[in-house]
Amino acid sequence: MLLKEVGEFGLIERIRQATPKGRGVRIGIGDDAAWVECRNHSLLITSDLLIEGIHFNLKRISFYALGYKTLAVNLSDLAAMGGSPAYLLLSLGIPVDFKTEDVEEFYRGIQALASQSGVAIVGGDTSASRLFFISACLVGHSPHKPITRRGGKVGDDLYVTGTLGDSALGLKLLKEKGTRSKQEHAYLVSRHLFPTARLKAGTTLARERLARAMIDLSDGLLQDLGHLCKASGIGAVVWEEALPLSRAYRIFTGKRGPLYALTGGEDYELLFCLRRRDRNRLEKIRRRLGVPIARIGECVPSREGIKVINRQGKSLSISVTGYDHFKNGT
Amino acid sequence: MLLKEVGEFGLIERIRQATPKGRGVRIGIGDDAAWVECRNHSLLITSDLLIEGIHFNLKRISFYALGYKTLAVNLSDLAAMGGSPAYLLLSLGIPVDFKTEDVEEFYRGIQALASQSGVAIVGGDTSASRLFFISACLVGHSPHKPITRRGGKVGDDLYVTGTLGDSALGLKLLKEKGTRSKQEHAYLVSRHLFPTARLKAGTTLARERLARAMIDLSDGLLQDLGHLCKASGIGAVVWEEALPLSRAYRIFTGKRGPLYALTGGEDYELLFCLRRRDRNRLEKIRRRLGVPIARIGECVPSREGIKVINRQGKSLSISVTGYDHFKNGT
Repeated sequence: MLLKEVGEFGLIERIRQATPKGRGVRIGIGDDAAWVECRNHSLLITSDLLIEGIHFNLKRISFYALGYKTLAVNLSDLAAMGGSPAYLLLSLGIPVDFKTEDVEEFYRGIQALASQSGVAIVGGDTSASRLFFISACLVGHSPHKPITRRGGKVGDDLYVTGTLGDSALGLKLLKEKGTRSKQEHAYLVSRHLFPTARLKAGTTLARERLARAMIDLSDGLLQDLGHLCKASGIGAVVWEEALPLSRAYRIFTGKRGPLYALTGGEDYELLFCLRRRDRNRLEKIRRRLGVPIARIGECVPSREGIKVINRQGKSLSISVTGYDHFKNGT
Repeated sequence: MLLKEVGEFGLIERIRQATPKGRGVRIGIGDDAAWVECRNHSLLITSDLLIEGIHFNLKRISFYALGYKTLAVNLSDLAAMGGSPAYLLLSLGIPVDFKTEDVEEFYRGIQALASQSGVAIVGGDTSASRLFFISACLVGHSPHKPITRRGGKVGDDLYVTGTLGDSALGLKLLKEKGTRSKQEHAYLVSRHLFPTARLKAGTTLARERLARAMIDLSDGLLQDLGHLCKASGIGAVVWEEALPLSRAYRIFTGKRGPLYALTGGEDYELLFCLRRRDRNRLEKIRRRLGVPIARIGECVPSREGIKVINRQGKSLSISVTGYDHFKNGT
């Protein structure tokens, strides 16, 4: 059977089932990061691929921004489990006609975010390649108990950090011809090029045992909510009017509404489940964190699936096939 | 300046110089693996790229062997520092028209060696890609003090494990048309497809503080000896007649002699420096390990460079430009 028939998630599931868990492995394949033992301590490890033509286009992103984003994407995976990042390994396949200066600019972009987030670049590999790609592996310290995708329960509240859909809208603006000087345009584009991993929110939600299940939003709210619900064995209701939208988002989408917020990828915000009785504790911590956190829905029995409901209580019909690199093809 | 002018090692050196060492980093970019702190413990982390058309050709290697070799290559990097492997992350860029069964066969190859060597596959990433490539990241436990490339001193003996040149000769046989049924042919080809990382030798040489400097042989003896000498600030003399050659090697090379042993890549044996006064201790341990270990030369002042000397004391003229993925092009 061809990969384009099985799809990315089908393939991962097959690999997961065929892989024995192994000694010292507390969480293996299938969550945002692996959780492994290391003597009296435990680590979180995550890795991500970024491939030219699939994940980015050099016409629309500078080498500096690409470096910055490479690390941000991996930081976000650790944030989703409540981890603190420490060490980065970076492997690059690079066409031989690239300029050395471009690769150095890429490293400057990584280093800028690495310095901010306490990450050391410790190694990796480089090779000539017909195709430009980046493979990053980030090792971090685990909280006492990392937050997985599995702990959500029926009746829990659903929350997200930040605002949704900005990155996808920023990408759309980048693809459109002409430049606009509006501040809102710059805001959305920068949300796409320089995403903010919610590290402090992630570690705090884990340490305070507030988030029961958590995932970072890389594939779009509905698709990532689907991953969380599947792992937790629950369904979910999302309230359209509760979706946190930036001012820039509202200006640019006008009446087209919440589509980008529901299905747009690469926001790198955190989605998590919370016990209702913890609402007050969350509110106190939210003020301390200084990060917007919005309640967007609730967890329901799995048989009810995932629904988006508008102000009138009507269920919106939104196709969430989601993006699959293998099925959607290159 | 273009990458094909700077070359792989030039690029790595630039990146190394521009990268601050960072908190908790004992050894960063530039050795076989990074050595980092992890609370009261320390870890070794390594990563390697394998790209179709550069590092392998699917006409000459099965998916199973490719999986096996992917892990072996990374094990060898840890072995060279005396580490014990533990966790593997694996990222794959795969063309959409590949069969799922082929990817599963690749994982079976990895799993076969992972089980033997106590490694757990804990995660990674997959994506559709125009080019097939593999990026692996292996995390292991460090000995009290890992062996680097830097500790060699003038007057030390030079040793290698196993035999040299088999893998390069095996690759040459694979490229030649027609098949031969000779046992020796099969032996050399299997040394190329299923290399043995010298894990036990590596950990023992580190634990017993025998190896003062060590590197694994991936680019060929002379090139890797060059890396070790440069890092240690020494030169080296290699005795042609002391090079350990397999019976199969002797049969297939005939009078062409030691070229493959000196310059052929992918042997994944260990090259190390030893104080002369430790010869007896090494001899005892060699018998316990059951791994061939041969004394092939000695360390000399750096101004003498690297020389290969034959039985008559004449210096052989061998060009060791070495293979550079960027300079030799794709």
